[in-house]
Amino acid sequence: MEFLVRQSRLFCPFLNKTSPATLRALSSSSPSSNGVSNLQVAARECPVMGAAMAIQSSRSYATSTKPLQFEQSSPSMANETSIESVHVKAGVFDTSKGICKHGLAVMKAAQAAAGEAAAEKEVEPIKATTSPSASKRHHNAFNYENFYQAELTKKHKDKSYRYFNNINRLAKEFPKAHTTSEEERVTVWCSNDYLGMSKNKDVLKSMRNTLDKYGAGAGGTRNIAGHNRHAVELEAALADLHSKEAALVFSSCYVANDATLSTLGSKLPDCVILSDQLNHASMIQGIRHSGARKIVFKHNDLVDLENKLKSLPLEVPKIIAFESVYSMCGSIAPIEKICDLADKYGAITFLDEVHAVGMYGPRGAGVAEHLDFEAHASGRPENTIMSRVDIITGTLGKAYGCVGGYIAGSAKFVDMIRSLAPGFIFTTSLPPSIMAGANTAIEYQKVTLKDRAAQQLNTRYVKAKLAELDIPVVPNPSHIVPVLVGDAETAKIASDMLLERFNIYVQAINYPTVPVGEERLRVTPTPGHDANLANKLVDALETVWTELGIKRVKDWEAVGGLAGVGVKGANPVKPIWTDAQLCLTRTTGILADKVVVEKETITAFPIEAAA
Amino acid sequence: MEFLVRQSRLFCPFLNKTSPATLRALSSSSPSSNGVSNLQVAARECPVMGAAMAIQSSRSYATSTKPLQFEQSSPSMANETSIESVHVKAGVFDTSKGICKHGLAVMKAAQAAAGEAAAEKEVEPIKATTSPSASKRHHNAFNYENFYQAELTKKHKDKSYRYFNNINRLAKEFPKAHTTSEEERVTVWCSNDYLGMSKNKDVLKSMRNTLDKYGAGAGGTRNIAGHNRHAVELEAALADLHSKEAALVFSSCYVANDATLSTLGSKLPDCVILSDQLNHASMIQGIRHSGARKIVFKHNDLVDLENKLKSLPLEVPKIIAFESVYSMCGSIAPIEKICDLADKYGAITFLDEVHAVGMYGPRGAGVAEHLDFEAHASGRPENTIMSRVDIITGTLGKAYGCVGGYIAGSAKFVDMIRSLAPGFIFTTSLPPSIMAGANTAIEYQKVTLKDRAAQQLNTRYVKAKLAELDIPVVPNPSHIVPVLVGDAETAKIASDMLLERFNIYVQAINYPTVPVGEERLRVTPTPGHDANLANKLVDALETVWTELGIKRVKDWEAVGGLAGVGVKGANPVKPIWTDAQLCLTRTTGILADKVVVEKETITAFPIEAAA
Repeated sequence: MEFLVRQSRLFCPFLNKTSPATLRALSSSSPSSNGVSNLQVAARECPVMGAAMAIQSSRSYATSTKPLQFEQSSPSMANETSIESVHVKAGVFDTSKGICKHGLAVMKAAQAAAGEAAAEKEVEPIKATTSPSASKRHHNAFNYENFYQAELTKKHKDKSYRYFNNINRLAKEFPKAHTTSEEERVTVWCSNDYLGMSKNKDVLKSMRNTLDKYGAGAGGTRNIAGHNRHAVELEAALADLHSKEAALVFSSCYVANDATLSTLGSKLPDCVILSDQLNHASMIQGIRHSGARKIVFKHNDLVDLENKLKSLPLEVPKIIAFESVYSMCGSIAPIEKICDLADKYGAITFLDEVHAVGMYGPRGAGVAEHLDFEAHASGRPENTIMSRVDIITGTLGKAYGCVGGYIAGSAKFVDMIRSLAPGFIFTTSLPPSIMAGANTAIEYQKVTLKDRAAQQLNTRYVKAKLAELDIPVVPNPSHIVPVLVGDAETAKIASDMLLERFNIYVQAINYPTVPVGEERLRVTPTPGHDANLANKLVDALETVWTELGIKRVKDWEAVGGLAGVGVKGANPVKPIWTDAQLCLTRTTGILADKVVVEKETITAFPIEAAA
Repeated sequence: MEFLVRQSRLFCPFLNKTSPATLRALSSSSPSSNGVSNLQVAARECPVMGAAMAIQSSRSYATSTKPLQFEQSSPSMANETSIESVHVKAGVFDTSKGICKHGLAVMKAAQAAAGEAAAEKEVEPIKATTSPSASKRHHNAFNYENFYQAELTKKHKDKSYRYFNNINRLAKEFPKAHTTSEEERVTVWCSNDYLGMSKNKDVLKSMRNTLDKYGAGAGGTRNIAGHNRHAVELEAALADLHSKEAALVFSSCYVANDATLSTLGSKLPDCVILSDQLNHASMIQGIRHSGARKIVFKHNDLVDLENKLKSLPLEVPKIIAFESVYSMCGSIAPIEKICDLADKYGAITFLDEVHAVGMYGPRGAGVAEHLDFEAHASGRPENTIMSRVDIITGTLGKAYGCVGGYIAGSAKFVDMIRSLAPGFIFTTSLPPSIMAGANTAIEYQKVTLKDRAAQQLNTRYVKAKLAELDIPVVPNPSHIVPVLVGDAETAKIASDMLLERFNIYVQAINYPTVPVGEERLRVTPTPGHDANLANKLVDALETVWTELGIKRVKDWEAVGGLAGVGVKGANPVKPIWTDAQLCLTRTTGILADKVVVEKETITAFPIEAAA
């Protein structure tokens, strides 16, 4: 539908100047309006739409015992058809000749925008669907279109229906983006391009050169024409990054996790997979697809994990599947202690470092490396925590700025997955330019701390500023800034307000990504967000919190706390990047003006702005 | 291990000048050699390896009641460790200091190359694995490394272990590629870049511009910062291509098929999925993951399909899942008749057009469009076969030369998958440059027939030439040239011979991609393969067939035929691209010199070469 909206903007001055968020706001009807939305009121003013709606309205009343009005009907196929026929009969335009289609397009766009409001009403059963593809289907058959609509209605009703924002991140103006209009600018505060590597000059140069020399796509699966120097070099770089014998690249880390866990779980005899309660959907799917027995342990809870391990025979193969940084709350797993338990109970460890690679450790290998920061920084140590983790998975699409995912582990393990996992075998390789760009990003981040230290400093800054205003941030030791809202609809409105009024893009995170009631705005600072931008964000959040009356930390305290916010007597959480690691030579508040790490000079926000 | 081989080439002149295929050939031992391979014989001549092997051999004899020799041992961790310790003790090099590591690397590379031969012997059980990551694991725990090795040994034994060839397709020399060495050239005859769109100038330009403006990666999932104009425009182009209301882009068509079928099958109440026997792995996985009841029908068999549909209640939701072009045999589904059955029995149709999009139909929408070629060519017809198909899935990684996959269908269906499928929701968007490139490729192929007509002519040429030589091609109406070998090991040797002696790359296709006993070389002509290259391929295949004594058509006839080859009394298969559609104005044999399609002049192979 978005394409329709975009197309309609070409014709309709109203749609052209009105943002999707405003359209959605307009599409909601107030209780006193008899179900007529503000959008529909506005539409009556339009010479094209007004005429069409008047005719439709009178015709509906005239021909139907039950009034069929645009205002009160569901956005179903039957409804769309009736609107179309009305337009044709009214002579407003002639769809069959393709002339003056914009009226219909505008109407459809308005309907799309009004979808949420309309869906709040019950969808009436439709006897025969009018979808062209289903026109010949037996009349007693299952009604598929109705079923799809019913599923969508559920999503609208529980406010988990997702509206995508059209955000075009500009390489030369990072972290700015343009929206549907190329002229508009918004500041992106929720991207996973944590270090801005997607606009890194070395990465872009490497991609451009590879594109010119080796073309757009790989041309085949890894087995059939799609294996090349880029794959070989990238996998070597990844194995080296994690000090593992081998690595294997997949289309994404979703696929890597899914394919690896499902293959391992289904192949290992009587395998049991112990899965952290907050694991990512890709791991949950992989475990489900494996058919293996799954035991969920409480988030980061070593006692619970040990009790569950203890209950299983020693000789039974077990996988402990967990993440280093949990993306929606920013918590960090006790990796070393989980390795201890794995050794004690004969399990292997499967660690998802998706939100940590590039971001932690002296070479960017993730939290497992970070835990032995000084040792890794000074050479190639043995018996590290990273070396104890059996399987590490990561992404090339977040801190490394490209796309794709991977696993790293022992040569035999990787070769087995390479040989058996359908999700690896039966799919086209990533394009050479993507693999080359990712390789460049990895190698770049292996030898510099600048970006990730600056990212951490900026994270500290934003967290501290929000704390000053009593705006609730889920406490965590990582780079994620989860600003707690606690309600799906409010989170969405807050996100829309930030976009509309402040040109700030922070997507609302609702169920199923976070539990119902823990909805949040997930803020991700980067090295590219200067103090000016950070202050604007904080000011905007203050306005939004005030205007929408969203709970502050003290309000959460009053109700006993939620998601770690407002929990009395809780120990303060220390960032995993310590002051020493960030080399905070001089600070005002929490912010260093100049930080020296490994002979590099890191400039975070200028000292004046932070003061 | 390939990285190891590559690294070793830097040091070892022998490895540097010897191709992987030759290494593998050398690694096989003859029955009379007491298990000593030619590679090991050669290794004894090497000043580094020879000394190490002598010491290892004598030490093994001296310290073990059972001789542990490199020649006779399995490529297990224990073995690697013993070799490493021998080297260290022998003073050849010191791994702990990282000095002169190349001896070990060469040894490991040789072991990797010898893997297949070594795996033919039984793997002895190892009590304690020596993998560093498992060193602290409880000694009575399950031995994971042994298990991985056992799975790999199975693959070696049944000859389904895959060796990837390092093939670097060169945009400016299409269809040529370089191998590990940048100087070597091979002709690629098995890529799925069917039309050479990966080197198309418009595609590359669009990608380059998008890369410069919007950076390397999308920076997030579609919901969080990863939705942009490129996604909107690409999905609009795809919906338009298939004349559907909407489309949705995924990381790959593997993911699209898996996510869509598993979501549909799990959501539709009591859903039954009827699946063609030869369906792709991605569909098989999707159906499995859905948990829905699955009924497999015989390949392209309408009677069997109808019998199975008939057995189900009319009102139960059903999905008929099938492909248009089956990639490994080139067969084409009876799409219209399957739609008839779907209507009659209240099913929806799920059609995978992965190997057909860009290749068939006047606008490249696939076989469903091709079946109404003239109608689609002259406008936007209604009630077409394509409009009757409920769900079409396709790829951006084959004829369109990029990477990624998609679904197209009704707006409600697509919106439901968008809203519910974890494989879509929880993964990073494709990079803007990839989406822009794919969009350019689609639009390019919408308005030209040149490339796909030339591809078809070249396919006809290769098929006719092979028929003249009685070399068996699985008969089919599509662009695939499956050359039947009928044995896994022979197929691999044939593929290696083509690469080594003729600089022709055609990967052997073995189980599980094709059934055991139907192994083949899958040849895919493109518009870029001229008659000179085609003749070289045909000559090379003739030599390989003669030298290896591979069955000709007459041999298959003598044993009653296989996979459609040598079946007496079988009707000849007509290409789905008819002569009229290819506008064969003048032919010598089967080949036109100049073909005029829609006012375009298509030049296939020059007439002289075809004569």
